[in-house]
Amino acid sequence: MENQQLNLDYHRIHNFNAGPATLPLSVLEQVQAELLDYHGTGMSLMEMSHRSTEFDALFQQIENDLSKLLNLPADYQVLFLQGGASLQFAMLPMNLRPAGASADYLVNGAWGQAAVKEAKKLGATRVAATSESTNFDRLPAFSAKDLDPKAAYLHYTSNETIHGIEWQAEPQPPAGLPLVCDMSSNFLSRPFDVTKFGLIYAGAQKNAGPAGTTIVIVRQDLLERVPPNLPAMLDYRLQADKGSMYNTPPTFSIYIVGLVLRWLLDMGGLPEIERRNLAKASLIYSAIDQSGGFYRPHAQADSRSRMNITFRMDNEELESLFAKQAKANGLVGLKGHRSVGGLRASLYNALSLESAQTLAEFMQEFQRTHG
Amino acid sequence: MENQQLNLDYHRIHNFNAGPATLPLSVLEQVQAELLDYHGTGMSLMEMSHRSTEFDALFQQIENDLSKLLNLPADYQVLFLQGGASLQFAMLPMNLRPAGASADYLVNGAWGQAAVKEAKKLGATRVAATSESTNFDRLPAFSAKDLDPKAAYLHYTSNETIHGIEWQAEPQPPAGLPLVCDMSSNFLSRPFDVTKFGLIYAGAQKNAGPAGTTIVIVRQDLLERVPPNLPAMLDYRLQADKGSMYNTPPTFSIYIVGLVLRWLLDMGGLPEIERRNLAKASLIYSAIDQSGGFYRPHAQADSRSRMNITFRMDNEELESLFAKQAKANGLVGLKGHRSVGGLRASLYNALSLESAQTLAEFMQEFQRTHG
Repeated sequence: MENQQLNLDYHRIHNFNAGPATLPLSVLEQVQAELLDYHGTGMSLMEMSHRSTEFDALFQQIENDLSKLLNLPADYQVLFLQGGASLQFAMLPMNLRPAGASADYLVNGAWGQAAVKEAKKLGATRVAATSESTNFDRLPAFSAKDLDPKAAYLHYTSNETIHGIEWQAEPQPPAGLPLVCDMSSNFLSRPFDVTKFGLIYAGAQKNAGPAGTTIVIVRQDLLERVPPNLPAMLDYRLQADKGSMYNTPPTFSIYIVGLVLRWLLDMGGLPEIERRNLAKASLIYSAIDQSGGFYRPHAQADSRSRMNITFRMDNEELESLFAKQAKANGLVGLKGHRSVGGLRASLYNALSLESAQTLAEFMQEFQRTHG
Repeated sequence: MENQQLNLDYHRIHNFNAGPATLPLSVLEQVQAELLDYHGTGMSLMEMSHRSTEFDALFQQIENDLSKLLNLPADYQVLFLQGGASLQFAMLPMNLRPAGASADYLVNGAWGQAAVKEAKKLGATRVAATSESTNFDRLPAFSAKDLDPKAAYLHYTSNETIHGIEWQAEPQPPAGLPLVCDMSSNFLSRPFDVTKFGLIYAGAQKNAGPAGTTIVIVRQDLLERVPPNLPAMLDYRLQADKGSMYNTPPTFSIYIVGLVLRWLLDMGGLPEIERRNLAKASLIYSAIDQSGGFYRPHAQADSRSRMNITFRMDNEELESLFAKQAKANGLVGLKGHRSVGGLRASLYNALSLESAQTLAEFMQEFQRTHG
């Protein structure tokens, strides 16, 4: 038995990164405490076989915790895959769009566009509605007649990180048309009804954990569509049959996702995190709305994201100064995405109310001195 | 500034797991020390944008360190991907086997078989030589006439973890036939000449780091073969153009790979780790060879793996007792792969000489009491 004394000075900043993003401090502390010796096994979780009794128990616990958080019905299966949402953009049509069939996409930002681009490489893909003409400042308008009831599925992106647009409720497809959602950037941030979906996917690195694993939740009857002879790693049915263990899964990332799920359950689940997320977003949108146009939101009021708040100022020099002074005040990650510019505050689950308050106060102070 | 005092009792066992596998203790200690606050940034490496200045500097350092370790020529490119070797089994023929062309495979174990199975789903695939008829107890015999000089590439598996078979030198393809190697389980364990290869791939979770990233090293001229319109995440050329950052890479796994590369450079690089690995393997093979048949090696002498030593005993009861008593003595991970049974000691880079000595002594003691 070794005894280890770590005596470390550290500081933590206010982390508004868009992803990979801030994680709960209590989760990081637990990871740190058990890093050399996981639960008395004499090894790190990273050094453990994915087919060991210990990892198997942990994996089952994680699946149970996720089921509990989401009220997951028995006919849905959870997969832990790799490659991020970008690989799902291709796997989805490979698996669930039969030969000759088309798929419908609702597009409200850059990630939806990327999903369409990948789907088009592999077969018939239709943009049923898009808000591109207004630079993705709102959700796309559409009615039932815009949708193809014979489509293989209807795909949408529940939150767009780059443009800061979020669906306030799910789009309603006609009966029998499976709804598919890229939920990468608001998964686990609010309650939702899984039974409305045929398939959901989410890269972990926003609200669920570190980069390196992608969660897919699929209604089991859809797995019957999977064509034979797909590459094994790209085959939803095979991955489901093997319980996400066809090969070595990203065990350490999955373990951290598990700790984040526990953190959510312990606080009261998705209703409680939604309450906290609303409070944080409200602070920042209030600072914008009360600025008299000094801060200008990108998103129309009915399409605002709780996760990624995008705004502009009068000119790029002022935006740069804002980001620079914010950083000097311990507020980092506020520059907008390189493709659109401006400013962006990402307020994911693990960002504290205190961090949001600090940003709101900084915005008011910055306006007083530069307005 | 916070001050943290961690006072932890921990113990470390002798970890013979086949992968995920033991990591250098000094690497784990560094990960632990900087887990809450990476280099004074006020956040964990896990919470950092993959497009930040800090991560960019780290990533370049990792690429430089790998180049240095391997004496990598300028016309080779390194990619950090996801999905393990199993996804490479499909990506390789997708990218480097032109339509209508065939590829040759040398098969010396279960992983080579899996590579063939995936390649066959996607096009013409030929097993040029295999040692299946002797249950993969040796390398396959072949001569120049067994190879197709018009094949897109010649693929082999440099080390088979399940059967414990390792190539002592690379197979020699005819001039102009690119050699491709699944080096997952002995990558970085010994020096090798990169210029002999067209492409090398390796899941990290044996010698290079934790599960979650896959290293691909490709000669740049081969990227000209990549067909248009592959799914982005499966396209070697696109991943090369984007410097492995088409989307969010598994940043934390890559960071730990970087620490392992530093550990290797600091000790003297691949010649030094080979010396250590030979010393460890020699201890265990000696215990087997000097047991008078009590321990029976699976591999023929000229095909023995330094990484995974596979052996049998007279009956399964004795093998179970061996694994059980070994575990009670702090030696874990010695059961053979579920598909072949028997016993297996994996002696990857981070396993210490002391652990190998402890196992050799345990084997002798077990034979004294049960022989």
